[in-house]
Amino acid sequence: MSVFWNSRTRNLDPYVPGEQPRDRRFIKLNTNENPYPPSPLVIETIREAAGEELRRYPDPECTELRELIARKYGVKEEQVFVGNGSDEVLAFSFGAFFEPLSGAACPGSSAAVSRPVLFPDITYSFYHIYARLWGIPCHTVALDDTFSVRAGDYRVPSGGLSLPNPNAPTGRAVSLAELRSIIEYQYREGGGVVIVDEAYRDFGLVQAGESAVSLIDEYPNLLTVHTFSKSFSLAGLRVGFAIGSGELLEGLRRIRDSFNSYTVDRLALAGAAAAIADSAYYEGINRRVMATRDRVSLALTSLGFDLIPSLTNFILVRVPGKSGAEAFKALRERGILARHFNQDRIQDFLRVSIGTDEEMDVFLTECGGLIRE
Amino acid sequence: MSVFWNSRTRNLDPYVPGEQPRDRRFIKLNTNENPYPPSPLVIETIREAAGEELRRYPDPECTELRELIARKYGVKEEQVFVGNGSDEVLAFSFGAFFEPLSGAACPGSSAAVSRPVLFPDITYSFYHIYARLWGIPCHTVALDDTFSVRAGDYRVPSGGLSLPNPNAPTGRAVSLAELRSIIEYQYREGGGVVIVDEAYRDFGLVQAGESAVSLIDEYPNLLTVHTFSKSFSLAGLRVGFAIGSGELLEGLRRIRDSFNSYTVDRLALAGAAAAIADSAYYEGINRRVMATRDRVSLALTSLGFDLIPSLTNFILVRVPGKSGAEAFKALRERGILARHFNQDRIQDFLRVSIGTDEEMDVFLTECGGLIRE
Repeated sequence: MSVFWNSRTRNLDPYVPGEQPRDRRFIKLNTNENPYPPSPLVIETIREAAGEELRRYPDPECTELRELIARKYGVKEEQVFVGNGSDEVLAFSFGAFFEPLSGAACPGSSAAVSRPVLFPDITYSFYHIYARLWGIPCHTVALDDTFSVRAGDYRVPSGGLSLPNPNAPTGRAVSLAELRSIIEYQYREGGGVVIVDEAYRDFGLVQAGESAVSLIDEYPNLLTVHTFSKSFSLAGLRVGFAIGSGELLEGLRRIRDSFNSYTVDRLALAGAAAAIADSAYYEGINRRVMATRDRVSLALTSLGFDLIPSLTNFILVRVPGKSGAEAFKALRERGILARHFNQDRIQDFLRVSIGTDEEMDVFLTECGGLIRE
Repeated sequence: MSVFWNSRTRNLDPYVPGEQPRDRRFIKLNTNENPYPPSPLVIETIREAAGEELRRYPDPECTELRELIARKYGVKEEQVFVGNGSDEVLAFSFGAFFEPLSGAACPGSSAAVSRPVLFPDITYSFYHIYARLWGIPCHTVALDDTFSVRAGDYRVPSGGLSLPNPNAPTGRAVSLAELRSIIEYQYREGGGVVIVDEAYRDFGLVQAGESAVSLIDEYPNLLTVHTFSKSFSLAGLRVGFAIGSGELLEGLRRIRDSFNSYTVDRLALAGAAAAIADSAYYEGINRRVMATRDRVSLALTSLGFDLIPSLTNFILVRVPGKSGAEAFKALRERGILARHFNQDRIQDFLRVSIGTDEEMDVFLTECGGLIRE
């Protein structure tokens, strides 16, 4: 605490990113990075873009990249918004669309009765943090006993909602039909904006035809959020985007242009554009990630580990006979970094990102060792 | 307006960045970019950094860059915070330190009497916008008739203040002694944080020994803000930083980690580090910019133009016999982009960035043409 912090800063509960070890001793399975390198075209394009033009500001509207994304995702350019990672896009979205409880200091005011924003009890932990930052009332909805979203729980009056699909860190997806029923309800009942965070869409959801991008033209209250950090193997480049109606995107631009007009740099714009152009490469590496995930899931199940079936590039897994904290520590000592969330219901699980086949073979060997300890 | 925007979004008055023409017809003197390219070492370092490691998240704490900045600026690593351009650093600072008027809806509450934040009537236009974004009450203080800051106006009870030094778009600086008297007053009277935005410091202020960085160890309420966009010729890379006490920086980290943990990408980190290492190159190009500025200022004065003496890489200038809007239009037709602010007291001025000698010779020729029209 500092006398110089305002009431907001004192009240925050900031995110703690997964450890980024500076040495290479570890097999790093803790932040859901893609184990395969970015496309060679991306690297080459960035090297070409590194030149004199860096002295100039980037295009604040990210026009060229938006055109490429629009073509690939089958939407219009004016339905695409680009930001500094999907975290920034989500932060802007919470700031733009969900009503703050500005009447917190005076419970009688009308603002104090703004409806809460909904999200699952087990989900991306940043949603709570954004809500705290912007002063938005929120209400968490419990996943069922299998860690699945029950769509009916979200067909209730709300101030909007945010759902990752597939959910993280569970790895489970909700069907497009169920998602539609939620978006439809919120639209008809004036409940507000539905954010569907598709960070992990390319590890099974899209292939199954279940992406909510297909609903964009029908529902002006739907915003899908996407990232280059996972399936495009560009976590180090910081690019994310949203797809939605023109009026939602205008809201995002209003927040961005009240904050930082140029959030995506010239090299990130160039690299992301090249990634979009090299779809074949990315489909190849993501197929490998999915195959490895399915193989590792099977192997862990036969070792007796509890496992949530995953449509992502990670698995949520429980090591038999160990608490989550113990399992995390034991794996770390064996040179493997996983992610442990000290949170109700999942505290005995670890989230394990899918690495290369070689890395996951070491992981499986160490898991075998763990249960024989 | 959209039914999906919250009350904040409806109430915003977003920034309008200077035009970034996509063709090259113009001599572009409208966004204070450096006319000289980044150091060759920067380009080479970025090309080397463009590789497989882009698949991994960057270091959220920007540790290596902070070490280099600390050494160059004679401060400690823990006194340096790095962000996505100085605009992001400023947005975080307003969010972290200045008290929002959360009682706007209920004027009787104690929050409603939070003291306003001060800044000049003519200054970086983003300050107003940040205040609006975060709901911070602010009060503008008129510059005197010569467009100078009167230090005494800021030695009054306040909720904090933000001053660019040199000021933009006037180009004028306030002396370190006067700045110290303001910071000292605010510190002793509990007025809160003083942000000194030194975006243009390397075009004269530092050389005169007038940077407020020298006061950091004395005043825990002082935050200086810096950018790689101007004197480091890296507007396209999006890196800025703040120097201040540990408790202020912890406040900035709390906001950042409630917003987007990784705002600076791996290539930007690498390029900025190389720029810091190549000081000699940058001192050379910035000396050229200053020499050109002084030559152009003299030439414009002899043409009969009104001019504010500038310690930056731009000049604020009034074309005789023309309104600012007319002068802007006439120059644009002649292939020169300047910046016009449709704002009281400076509406008859243009802000003109200093280009290369060749560009400024064309500019001077066209100015000569203008007054003979």
